[in-house]
Amino acid sequence: MNVFNKTFALETKKQFQIIDITKEVLDALKQSKVKNGQIAIFCPHTTASVRINHFEPLLLQDVMKLMYRLAPIENNYAHDFFEIRTEIQAGERSNGHAHIKAFLLGSSETIPVMEGKPVLGFRQSVFFIELDGGRTRRFVVSVLGE
Amino acid sequence: MNVFNKTFALETKKQFQIIDITKEVLDALKQSKVKNGQIAIFCPHTTASVRINHFEPLLLQDVMKLMYRLAPIENNYAHDFFEIRTEIQAGERSNGHAHIKAFLLGSSETIPVMEGKPVLGFRQSVFFIELDGGRTRRFVVSVLGE
Amino acid sequence: MNVFNKTFALETKKQFQIIDITKEVLDALKQSKVKNGQIAIFCPHTTASVRINHFEPLLLQDVMKLMYRLAPIENNYAHDFFEIRTEIQAGERSNGHAHIKAFLLGSSETIPVMEGKPVLGFRQSVFFIELDGGRTRRFVVSVLGE
Repeated sequence: MNVFNKTFALETKKQFQIIDITKEVLDALKQSKVKNGQIAIFCPHTTASVRINHFEPLLLQDVMKLMYRLAPIENNYAHDFFEIRTEIQAGERSNGHAHIKAFLLGSSETIPVMEGKPVLGFRQSVFFIELDGGRTRRFVVSVLGE
Repeated sequence: MNVFNKTFALETKKQFQIIDITKEVLDALKQSKVKNGQIAIFCPHTTASVRINHFEPLLLQDVMKLMYRLAPIENNYAHDFFEIRTEIQAGERSNGHAHIKAFLLGSSETIPVMEGKPVLGFRQSVFFIELDGGRTRRFVVSVLGE
Repeated sequence: MNVFNKTFALETKKQFQIIDITKEVLDALKQSKVKNGQIAIFCPHTTASVRINHFEPLLLQDVMKLMYRLAPIENNYAHDFFEIRTEIQAGERSNGHAHIKAFLLGSSETIPVMEGKPVLGFRQSVFFIELDGGRTRRFVVSVLGE
């Protein structure tokens, strides 16, 4: 049984940005030498997320539009008053909306591995979802199996 | 340590359909002979999802109503124009709304296994959630443990 | 390879309550003696959830406000009529809204473990999210690795 964890860094450039990280997931799987098992992808940030869907630019616009509709940036978030009080000297932004979106989208996904490949469907890509960029971000790919 | 992955096929009949797949999860666990470990359930489609909740038909109606409220089928989705341009000859549908719903609901859940049983609560069932049916679909049950 | 599963109990006091369970996750990891692997956190209830974000009281208010906006308690849920018919003698509540919220938030998250620590970010806490309290609740922490 093998255990293989790898941390990847990335730079985001926009406030809301959906980045295809399928290649990094495949690279980690290859390095792990696991043929049967599971891959967990984890986002170690509170204003970003991990999801799996179709990498189609117009669809990604639709997703952004929905998320801004569910958690509008112009709403008042109590969290932003907390940050103004305590952290403005550290250069923090008003990012209540981004935390809320991360709550809805979640921090991890797990993909089974069969015959050395993740069982991703024909149109599935793994996404890192930036909700409060641009920033330096990380994600972790964790492979368990044999 | 055992690794056991199994792919199941199913036919959906409606545009939005919530199907109880708990029996298939239990079957895979039994075949794996794992007594302590984890089960991951994965949906390899971009317009379907996996979730765990109460199999109660009126509740499932409530869930459908909510998801149609969050991502109405009559809204304009940029993705649908992409598909019209590129894929209409392949018989693709306007399914922007379904991708959006899948983003919100997610592609995987992980259930611990203790004493040969998933630790599902009294009223928990595992669901395959069709968001753009009817279609031929698959899901993967992946068991790791000893 | 080690497998270590542990069930924790907790008492919730409010209808909607977000409880930091990071300490319990760390305790289970310590007991497991796993240095590299994965932790799955699972909620075995249909009106509660598990999520990971920033433990900041004003932010948690924002999350509650959003979830009540998405699934208002004063809406009519078909599920509540089902419960009135079949379960009122058992003291069941009208909790359609809480099942709906649990569908959106999900039942599990998976965190990689490296060098004996979960790879949680600086501000990430693991939350048990009560959506229909107060009740006696449980959650399961499942560690796999070496």
